[in-house]
Amino acid sequence: MQLSFSAKQIAEVLHGEIIGDPTVQVSDFSKIEEGKLGTLTFLSNPKYEHFIYDTQASVVLVNSDFTPSKPVNATLIKVFNAYASLAILLDIVNSSKPQKQGIEEPSFISTSSKTGKNIYVGAFAYIGENAKIGDNVKIYPQAYIGDNVEIGEGTTIYPGVKIYEGCKIGKNCIIHSGAVIGADGFGFAPENGEFKKIPQLGIVLIEDNVEIGANTAIDRAVMNETRIGKGVKLDNLIQIAHNVQIGENTVMASQVGISGSTKVGKNCMLGGQVGLGGHITIGNNTNIGAQSGIISNIDSGVNILGSPAIPVKNFFRSSAVFAKLPDMYRQINQLQKELDQIKANLASEQ
Amino acid sequence: MQLSFSAKQIAEVLHGEIIGDPTVQVSDFSKIEEGKLGTLTFLSNPKYEHFIYDTQASVVLVNSDFTPSKPVNATLIKVFNAYASLAILLDIVNSSKPQKQGIEEPSFISTSSKTGKNIYVGAFAYIGENAKIGDNVKIYPQAYIGDNVEIGEGTTIYPGVKIYEGCKIGKNCIIHSGAVIGADGFGFAPENGEFKKIPQLGIVLIEDNVEIGANTAIDRAVMNETRIGKGVKLDNLIQIAHNVQIGENTVMASQVGISGSTKVGKNCMLGGQVGLGGHITIGNNTNIGAQSGIISNIDSGVNILGSPAIPVKNFFRSSAVFAKLPDMYRQINQLQKELDQIKANLASEQ
Amino acid sequence: MQLSFSAKQIAEVLHGEIIGDPTVQVSDFSKIEEGKLGTLTFLSNPKYEHFIYDTQASVVLVNSDFTPSKPVNATLIKVFNAYASLAILLDIVNSSKPQKQGIEEPSFISTSSKTGKNIYVGAFAYIGENAKIGDNVKIYPQAYIGDNVEIGEGTTIYPGVKIYEGCKIGKNCIIHSGAVIGADGFGFAPENGEFKKIPQLGIVLIEDNVEIGANTAIDRAVMNETRIGKGVKLDNLIQIAHNVQIGENTVMASQVGISGSTKVGKNCMLGGQVGLGGHITIGNNTNIGAQSGIISNIDSGVNILGSPAIPVKNFFRSSAVFAKLPDMYRQINQLQKELDQIKANLASEQ
Repeated sequence: MQLSFSAKQIAEVLHGEIIGDPTVQVSDFSKIEEGKLGTLTFLSNPKYEHFIYDTQASVVLVNSDFTPSKPVNATLIKVFNAYASLAILLDIVNSSKPQKQGIEEPSFISTSSKTGKNIYVGAFAYIGENAKIGDNVKIYPQAYIGDNVEIGEGTTIYPGVKIYEGCKIGKNCIIHSGAVIGADGFGFAPENGEFKKIPQLGIVLIEDNVEIGANTAIDRAVMNETRIGKGVKLDNLIQIAHNVQIGENTVMASQVGISGSTKVGKNCMLGGQVGLGGHITIGNNTNIGAQSGIISNIDSGVNILGSPAIPVKNFFRSSAVFAKLPDMYRQINQLQKELDQIKANLASEQ
Repeated sequence: MQLSFSAKQIAEVLHGEIIGDPTVQVSDFSKIEEGKLGTLTFLSNPKYEHFIYDTQASVVLVNSDFTPSKPVNATLIKVFNAYASLAILLDIVNSSKPQKQGIEEPSFISTSSKTGKNIYVGAFAYIGENAKIGDNVKIYPQAYIGDNVEIGEGTTIYPGVKIYEGCKIGKNCIIHSGAVIGADGFGFAPENGEFKKIPQLGIVLIEDNVEIGANTAIDRAVMNETRIGKGVKLDNLIQIAHNVQIGENTVMASQVGISGSTKVGKNCMLGGQVGLGGHITIGNNTNIGAQSGIISNIDSGVNILGSPAIPVKNFFRSSAVFAKLPDMYRQINQLQKELDQIKANLASEQ
Repeated sequence: MQLSFSAKQIAEVLHGEIIGDPTVQVSDFSKIEEGKLGTLTFLSNPKYEHFIYDTQASVVLVNSDFTPSKPVNATLIKVFNAYASLAILLDIVNSSKPQKQGIEEPSFISTSSKTGKNIYVGAFAYIGENAKIGDNVKIYPQAYIGDNVEIGEGTTIYPGVKIYEGCKIGKNCIIHSGAVIGADGFGFAPENGEFKKIPQLGIVLIEDNVEIGANTAIDRAVMNETRIGKGVKLDNLIQIAHNVQIGENTVMASQVGISGSTKVGKNCMLGGQVGLGGHITIGNNTNIGAQSGIISNIDSGVNILGSPAIPVKNFFRSSAVFAKLPDMYRQINQLQKELDQIKANLASEQ
């Protein structure tokens, strides 16, 4: 936090009610089970209530309906939603951090590029020919902005991001270190036992308010564009192949892989390590569990899991039986024997 | 495309037959379902035929055996293979793009390195001691070429690629941003509850015409070499462990992981997120489906899927039954009860 | 190796016994099946014994209990443990390699940073404000050390590593190219159908003697820290989410993904492509097989596999039956029919 606030100041910001000493000061955050003096923590999940009676934290945000069943040492601040209020405080602290500004040297900014106002360009960053960089963009050290790339205002490009020629990034995006935007799609035509490269002439188009995690790779289209919709959030180490389209406000956990030309709808949630086959369509509002494998179109609104994926409830039921398969196998063979015996007995009786 | 061609010019290049207006001009490519005026598209898969009657594209490449069943607005160009002809056009447009040349400053080129003719070295690129860079090599900004590395002629190293000391890259290879060639293999010996590092003194050897995707990692050998055969194509985010050998013209989709000392044959195809255990051998011409897990040797020519992998047909049949396991489980127990009842009845009759 | 040693010199270092010519010289290592004149190899696994009778290698390290059953051309050196002795030789050769030293230009070292003695800073490396770099640290070209980062003595940061603001790295760590330490955790709060970013104000804390593979990503905590314990070894392309804690001397193979706030115990081994869900606890000394998926707490000392994971033996038994599921399905239905027939027959007899 590196700042110090009194419980009273915090309660005012959050429109909360103080139970306890309003003058106590906090200068950092902590988890309730590891709370230290001088820190602020929160209690949202009733499962963790028991920690509040022992925590050393000085201030605890609690939901307005919370009433302690035992004495509490910390000063409580009652708010409508403790977790949302914590997020507000994190935002305040975050926005108080010093912001990078100006052009560090040496950096490489092509004379044909157009750069907006109030930008940051870190040392060893590279801005190619005819690139257009909007106002308030931050390009951290060692980032690469290829020729003809466009970056919308307010976007942050962290150290070492690579954006290939011609790609377009929207406004207020965040791209984390090691992400590669616009490398060639994986397109080859078999020819006499070898593979001939098919040029990848399209681009990657990233709309506004997208966040892209560390070391994620989004390939350029063979023609036209690979498109990442407005508000999409991609975690680390994700693979998005050429010509994929991701609908607005879809979120994906790390290590997801999406094959070429697949369309993912809006407001979907993909768990970690999910794999989607190529040329398929995933409907809006779908929920695909971690490690699932999908090879055909998926309707909107479903909740699936497994490889190949089936409805979540069915997956867990089938998995429970999977563990019993050896017993089932033995039982079936035993049943067969018993049945054969009965048939033999009945036959001999006749 | 940034160039403009008439249907007549294109037909001449492709030795195609024009149906419609030969003077119509195109300056970009489009997908048939999103075709715009002034663009060229293609129809290869009969499944998409209906789009051709509505497309706004000005020119459509079609297979020579295609006959429209309704009127078409676009100019058609009949060719032997529409997709292959498209690839030819993509190649032409691609080769017309301006090529990077010369040495951008600041860059770091060791005086003991040897660099060929007509190379490109981008700003902030690093070429270590005694490195040998062949003719017509392109080393984009922020790439790292370690000491004693050799790079064959015509190879392209995209921004931010890292090649550790002593590795050898063949001719006409393409290595995409974020790929790491020659980091230490994962070798540790347990010692008193801790793990002691085993030095990794080998190299990575990449033969000619190999393409390596963004953020793929290929580890150096403990001794001798990790070898990537001629013509191999690796997609993004792949892991190749130390001492692995990949045969010629094998292709792997993204996020595959191959454990140490495993040998993969020639002309194999590995789907996305496949995992291969260590010290195993995969025969030539094998096809391993996405997300498969392989822990033992695999014969040449097989087509397998699953974790552990089994023949593809069997996998899909077993998976279909997997979804029915809870029903099967109930049915078996019901059968058992019925059988016990019959046995009891028969026993009481005697 | 680039050095030359006689069998006699090597035997002295290893306290081994020479069988054969002590004057033979070796200057490189080889695998026993590919041994060349002038190289040293080893025989540890009895499975490979047959290679020793044909190998062209000049010197072979063998275990002290090995007695050849046929004539051997190579000079043998008998040692207590051939593989451990090989590791000693690899160490000797490795430590004889020239070490990088000094500050290459251009590099960017903030005047407010503190740097120790005898460090290496490669060209295009960036060291941010108030960063603290210990003695004997090596920072290779194009690495990024953010503001307020601390790096303990003897640590090596390979080319292109990115360490975000405020993270702390212990002593004698090795971080390979492309690793990203301290990118934002994946934290978003749903708000009117969109996702609002929750600032990630914590850090990553890496203890001593940790090795981190190429392109691995370790996210900073939302508050407090993501912690990697002493002696942990992480392979390439691993994802460690925010607020995860990894216990001492745990090792993970490549492409593992660990979700937020999960705690992994000490001395665990995770196979490649394993996925752990969020907010769970994995006990000490657990062994989790490749591609497993874990969504609940795991006791110490277990050995599990599968997604969802079950004990290893059970997994293999169930997997064997999985391949037979179509047959089982048919058999059950056949049993049902036969049983129904018997019941019908018995009913008609009465």
